[in-house]
This record gives sequence, structure tokens and C-alpha cells, in this order.
Amino acid sequence: MRGFSQAISFLRESPTRKIDAIRERLKRENRDIINLSAGQPGIPPPIEIRSLLAKQLLEERGMDLYGYTPSQGIIELREAVAEDLKRLGGIDVDPGNIVIITGGQEGMFATFMTILNPGDEVILLDPTYFGYKPIIEYFSGRIKRLALSMDEGFKIDVERLKELITSRTKALVLVSPDNPTGNIVDRDTAKAIADLARDKDFWIVSDEAYRTLIYEGEHTYIYRYAPDHVISINTFSKDPGIPGWRLGFVYGPSDAVPKLKLAAEEMTYCPPVVAQRFVAAYLRSEVRMKHLRYIIEEYRSRRDAAIEALRNYLPEARFIIPRGSMFVFVDMSRYIRDSERFAEILLEKFGVTVIPGTYFSDIYRAAIRVSFVVESIDRIREGIRKIGEAVSEYGESL
Amino acid sequence: MRGFSQAISFLRESPTRKIDAIRERLKRENRDIINLSAGQPGIPPPIEIRSLLAKQLLEERGMDLYGYTPSQGIIELREAVAEDLKRLGGIDVDPGNIVIITGGQEGMFATFMTILNPGDEVILLDPTYFGYKPIIEYFSGRIKRLALSMDEGFKIDVERLKELITSRTKALVLVSPDNPTGNIVDRDTAKAIADLARDKDFWIVSDEAYRTLIYEGEHTYIYRYAPDHVISINTFSKDPGIPGWRLGFVYGPSDAVPKLKLAAEEMTYCPPVVAQRFVAAYLRSEVRMKHLRYIIEEYRSRRDAAIEALRNYLPEARFIIPRGSMFVFVDMSRYIRDSERFAEILLEKFGVTVIPGTYFSDIYRAAIRVSFVVESIDRIREGIRKIGEAVSEYGESL
Repeated sequence: MRGFSQAISFLRESPTRKIDAIRERLKRENRDIINLSAGQPGIPPPIEIRSLLAKQLLEERGMDLYGYTPSQGIIELREAVAEDLKRLGGIDVDPGNIVIITGGQEGMFATFMTILNPGDEVILLDPTYFGYKPIIEYFSGRIKRLALSMDEGFKIDVERLKELITSRTKALVLVSPDNPTGNIVDRDTAKAIADLARDKDFWIVSDEAYRTLIYEGEHTYIYRYAPDHVISINTFSKDPGIPGWRLGFVYGPSDAVPKLKLAAEEMTYCPPVVAQRFVAAYLRSEVRMKHLRYIIEEYRSRRDAAIEALRNYLPEARFIIPRGSMFVFVDMSRYIRDSERFAEILLEKFGVTVIPGTYFSDIYRAAIRVSFVVESIDRIREGIRKIGEAVSEYGESL
Repeated sequence: MRGFSQAISFLRESPTRKIDAIRERLKRENRDIINLSAGQPGIPPPIEIRSLLAKQLLEERGMDLYGYTPSQGIIELREAVAEDLKRLGGIDVDPGNIVIITGGQEGMFATFMTILNPGDEVILLDPTYFGYKPIIEYFSGRIKRLALSMDEGFKIDVERLKELITSRTKALVLVSPDNPTGNIVDRDTAKAIADLARDKDFWIVSDEAYRTLIYEGEHTYIYRYAPDHVISINTFSKDPGIPGWRLGFVYGPSDAVPKLKLAAEEMTYCPPVVAQRFVAAYLRSEVRMKHLRYIIEEYRSRRDAAIEALRNYLPEARFIIPRGSMFVFVDMSRYIRDSERFAEILLEKFGVTVIPGTYFSDIYRAAIRVSFVVESIDRIREGIRKIGEAVSEYGESL
């Protein structure tokens, strides 16, 4: 009989999609919306690489720019990625261990499609990126949560992590630099987690989407410490800034790679060729490091403006200063209790979008995630000023 | 413990990938390979649309060309697709019932992710496109096969189809114009199948990847006859010819659409924006029908050359003249028995790639699929001449 899969009922629309839809509606009503919710950059990729692609579109006569590629991705790009990991992270990853994917989302889906059996346990931090829960539930995994505390700078207590490990533990998901908190897992913690993963034999699913967006400190490439136990998920959405082009990469041990490749191939056959060519040119170009320095500097000053505005307009809000990624995770519990209701009012009445803390956390239900990379400094300030206005007007009731 | 999913063991590398890999190796050895295996066109998209994109890359200053889009696809493209379905097929599909996808492969995966429960039966024709079996098996579906006969022009006998229907029948997969045979399901047969699907309440998964590549006759849009029972899978890989850009669309009834959208969103978040903008411009441009007429005329003459060469060099080969798609499916049983072994020898010794019949059929094990859209007429002739050479040299032993 006609009808639908039971398993697909686990899937829910991404919460950012919900906010996006309301924002689109208000935009059509010509409302000016300040976007402090988006998980995508506000700076387009460098003009030098765009010009190169324009030239190829006009001049190339064959199908190289339009045809299928190997499902693992073109070798030029995998080699460029390996060089990049060496240059920025000092790690040696063979191009054969890299699978180019159609965006970080496919990387996440392919990873759990590759490793999970029904009933397997996966440890998620709280707070953490909301994209993992529906995928794990779709593959009938069981989620355990390790609560992190803002007071401790969201630092992972490895002894407490150890207590969660059972014989059914399949994986731990680490997001560093973190979405939503902007925290960076320090080297000693990464080493300790890697030791634990080797000792207890579970996967570390290491989401490194923001690895190049570091404002202070440095990113630890945890693969270095447990190469047989890490599947690393990466994206080109944030750097060079082509989220809508859908391109990223995963790397991991040699027994995982063919399966990750097959999973991705079954979903999308191959990653988009035009994006692959574009990023291969970018990573190997002279503008790459220049562009990266430029966006980091730009985003750092936007972050600083956001921090200053939060202190001015929301003096009782609590947060850690994000050392990476694109977000400040702001605990608003002195002002409000229900972040979902607050985000709705903030958008409808004040024209500012944020993501409610409930999407990331069972604990920080009164927090909001504020993105600082889309809007200009003036508009970030104005948006946060309006958040202040919203809490003084509606805070009591929420 | 570390380890892998059991279910993923159902996935196998696409057979075209295997051939591709050997071809790449021989190319690196500077062997000239005649490609009669590829499922992708040999004509790039029109220069007018490429120029438009080049201009946008150089001149647009915001993130519109780089950012995420709604997961269902941009409205401009969904509207353009609805207009195209109206213009070419005379069917009314609301843009709200269209989901833009990251290529036909994602459409196939999302469709079975949406409809299949373990143990559900899916009817595949024999021969049929090899992409469906692994996906259905991955979702624990059970495959039943309806054998088609070349002698009857691969026409579907609806009475025999009826005999395969049980209470567990979830779907029938139709590929028309067909890969590998080039056959087109005629209107009366489509109507009868639609009646049966409504009567017995099963899904028709209608793969219409080649709907615009018709050399004689016309494509029947089966959605017209069973709008609540058809999920139609489409691609822009063949027209305008951007297979590597990964873009297509599915449409279906209103209860299926949100699930198809969620499935695609979970896999890839959104379809590639640059491809969406490109195809929206293409479908609405004046060059669209001109380009389509041009590629059809070009591919038709290549097809005719292939047919003529087959008759010359392989007089005992049997095939139907393909009225659509990109392929001739050639029964070589007068010459050989083992098409897989033959395809390998043909590639290694004669530098010609074809796809063995075993990938499409349990019956036509001595057939080969010959693609006529990648190579020039001269090279198609030369390739088929070499196939003749190969059978006279090795045919006895295979």
C-alpha cells in the first residue's frame, strides 16, 4: 500500500529554517530584519577566485567544468586539502583518506550512516549543534548527554565523560570551535579524550566546521592523537564562504573511508564539480591566507562589537567570549525563562533574529545564540540594543 | 565499540564508477579511450547562460550567489520548473509540490527514504537502471522483477504486472525514456499502470531523467493520470547538461512533499545555489528551446550513426532503436555470453568503454549498453567497429 516510512518521522525541519521562513515573510512585507541568527558568513569569497571561475565559464569548451567527478572528489582538491591540513594543523592526512562531500550536512549524515547500528549510544555535549540529534535518532541511535557549564567555560570534564561510556558507546560528537558557544577544546583535553577513545574503543566524530575561524588560541586537530578513532567533518561554507554551494570534506582511518565514500555516493553520486574546482583554486592560491586573515580580522571586530553591546545593553546577561566560530551563546536567565517565545517576539516585534537556546541545550533554556558574522558592526549593535529593549518590555512575561 | 553499520554493507560502488576508474588509469597511460559508457551528455550548457553566471560572479556584491537557499529550493526555480512542466507536458504542478534536489541520485535516495519500511516490496522492471537496487536494499525493501522482452519492444504487459502486486507492494519503479533501452512507455500503458496504482494503492516512482531527450514520439507525464500515486524524479544533468553540478527536482502529492523535502534537507541541507540560479535563468531564457532542439538534433544524428554502425559491424546484434535517452541496449548473445568479461577486454585491449548488461538485467546477461551522446559521430563509429573486432577476436572464448 501507498504510505510512508516510519523512520522518517524522526526528522524535523531545522529550527533555523523555521526562523528563516518567518524572516522571509517579514522581508516580503518590507520589514528591515537584523539577522543575528544565520550560521553563514556575510563576506563573499575572494574576487580573484570568482574571476577565475568566470573566465573558465566563458572559455572552457569541454565538459570538465560540468561533468561528473569521482565520487570521492577530484584529486586536485583532495591534494589541496591535505596540504591545507598540513599547513594549518601540522597533520599528515593522505589524500586517499579524504572524501569530498556535498557540504557538512552530508558529512554528518554519511558519518552516522557509516557507523551507527540501532541501539548504539552516542554522547552529545550539552549545549551542542542541533544538527546531530535528528540524524542519530533517524539511525535509531540512543543519545546520552554530557552537561557542560558556562561557569567552567564549557570545558569538558574527561572524568565525567568517562562515567558515560558503556559497552554500547559508539561515538562522541565534539564540535570545536563550537557552535553555539564559540569555545575551543584545548590541547590537553583533546589529548585526554583521544586517549579515552582509543582505550574504550569508540569513535570521535569531530566537527571542525569552524577550524579556520579562530580569534584567539589555536585549533587542535584531534585526529593527530587518535587517527584510528576520529572521523573529522569539515566544510567550505565558512571559509571561503560558499555555504550555498554545498562543499566540504571528511577524513578518517582507512577502513572508514570507503564506507563514507559509498554513503555519500549513494546520496549525491559526486560533490558539485564547480565548487570543487573553485575551492581547489582557492586553497592553492596566494589570496587564500590573505583572505583568511581578512575575514578573521573582520569577524573579530564584529565579535568585539557584539561583546561590547551585550555588556552595554544586557548587563546581566552571561556568556563566554567566543574564541572561534561565529556565535556568542548568551545566557539570558536573569531576564527571561522561555527563549523560544522570546525569539519569536524579538523577530515579530523588534525585527531581530536569534536562535533560542533550547535548540542546543536542555539546560540553557533561557539562552540565545547571537551570530556576529552576517551584519555590519552598526547593525550588530542596533540588534543587541533591540534585544535589550525587548527584555525590558517583555522580559517579565517570559 | 568502534565499528560500522550493518546496513551500509548493502551499498556497492556504482558499476559505472568501476569502469570510470579503469578508464582514468588508461588515460593516465595516455591511451585514447572511446567512451561509450558514460551516462552524461557531451555538449556543455549554452554559452548565453554561462556568460550570465560569469557576469554575476564578477558583479554581484552580496551573498545571494553564495548563501544557503530554502531547502525546498528557490521559488524562482520552482516556478520555472512548473512552467516547464506545463509547456512541455501540459501538466499542472504547483510550485509548492516541487522539491529541488541535489541531483537525481538524491531524488532516488530521498524517495525511498520517504516511502519504504522494512519488508516492503518494490517492483523493478528487467532491464532497468542499476541505481535503484542498492537503495531499495539499503532500506530493507524486497525487490520483485518484471521481465521485459526485447522482442516485444520492452513493452510492459500490465496483466503480468498485476500478478506481481501483493498487499506488501509499496512501489513500482518506471524509467521512461528508459535507461538502458531507450524505450518510451506509451500513453495507453501509462494510463493502465496509473489505473492499477490507484486501484491497488501503490506508488509509481517515475524516473523521468530523460524526459526532454526524445527523438521520436513523446514523453507521457504519468503524474497526470495518478497525481496522488506518483513521485516523479527529474534531473538537470541531461538538459541543460550540468551533471556535475548536482541539480534536479522531484514532485508528488501534497502529503509526500514535506517528507521528501525533510529527507533531502537532512542529507544536504539545501540544493546548490549557483546551479539553482543557473537553471532558473536557463529555463526562462529564449535560448532554452533553441538549445534543446540543438542537442536533440545532434544526439539524434549520433544515435543514427550508432545504429548504422551496429548494423554494419555487428550484424547479428539485436536491439530496439532508442526513441529517447542516451543509450542503445545491444543484445550480443549471438557473439558472447559474459558481458562483464567482454566489457573488461573491450576496455583493456580495444580502448572502448561500454556498460555490461548484467548491471541492468538478470536476463540480458550478454547485452551491453552503448551510450551515443559523449563521443563524436566518427568516434562512435570507430568504437563500434572495435566492438566488432573484439567479438571476432575474443567472442568464442566469452
